[in-house]
Amino acid sequence: MTRLKVAAVLAGVCGLLTALPATAQFQKPEDAVKYRKAAFTVMGAHFARIGAMANGRVPFDGAAAAANAQVVADVAKLPFAGFVEGTAGTEKGQPKANVWSDRAKFDASAKKMQDEVAKLNAAAKTNNLDQLKAAFGAAAGTCKDCHDNYRNP
Amino acid sequence: MTRLKVAAVLAGVCGLLTALPATAQFQKPEDAVKYRKAAFTVMGAHFARIGAMANGRVPFDGAAAAANAQVVADVAKLPFAGFVEGTAGTEKGQPKANVWSDRAKFDASAKKMQDEVAKLNAAAKTNNLDQLKAAFGAAAGTCKDCHDNYRNP
Repeated sequence: MTRLKVAAVLAGVCGLLTALPATAQFQKPEDAVKYRKAAFTVMGAHFARIGAMANGRVPFDGAAAAANAQVVADVAKLPFAGFVEGTAGTEKGQPKANVWSDRAKFDASAKKMQDEVAKLNAAAKTNNLDQLKAAFGAAAGTCKDCHDNYRNP
Repeated sequence: MTRLKVAAVLAGVCGLLTALPATAQFQKPEDAVKYRKAAFTVMGAHFARIGAMANGRVPFDGAAAAANAQVVADVAKLPFAGFVEGTAGTEKGQPKANVWSDRAKFDASAKKMQDEVAKLNAAAKTNNLDQLKAAFGAAAGTCKDCHDNYRNP
């Protein structure tokens, strides 16, 4: 068995034997939905930990804030690739059709969030709670804007 | 309304008003399960894209391989915090009880995977398909080992 075949078999064992055309990142729309939801779940968990410090529910821990903010900034780049055509809905939490009917505006909202979490990441590295609070509030505002405009309540 | 209160309201709008004790990263075991599955979903999606190149199903694209490997290396650090006590199971895909009964060994398996995906990340930056294939096979082997030992088939 060649090394290449071994890798193919191992990838299969890992449940990853998905044949994808070079132009598509997801084989099925459901895969894209699962992916984007997963990315938001991870991002939200780490964002919430910063929020708990910013809002005084847990003691400020500069190192933890910095670590969480780095994850938020990294993962914030990911979910929007999962907003593929044909995945709008009308149920709670599903994206509205205007994600696709005005995609440039949606992408601008995504970019605004990414910019604010990049600032949050920088603020978290200062080990200064006031800076963290301000940057957290600004980043959280971009969550709200996007949810208000593009997500079924 | 103070800036702090604004941040609190915005965090609530984002669905993130979870009060967490400083010692716990997850409020409920279900949150930890959802988090770890989400992290594996994100990691797996990007790992699969590298696998598609390593196995010749899509053309090699060095920049794409490097970008995907960076995400894999970053996200690989995350899911294991979600293996909290009380979340073993016997159904397909659920972790077996030996994750917790021999946690040190499980953690060593996790570390081995993280080490191999760090090597994969380095290999992906060389823009050399042969190096990518070798590192992908080694990393995929660590998926298989952990699934064989700790995951219900």
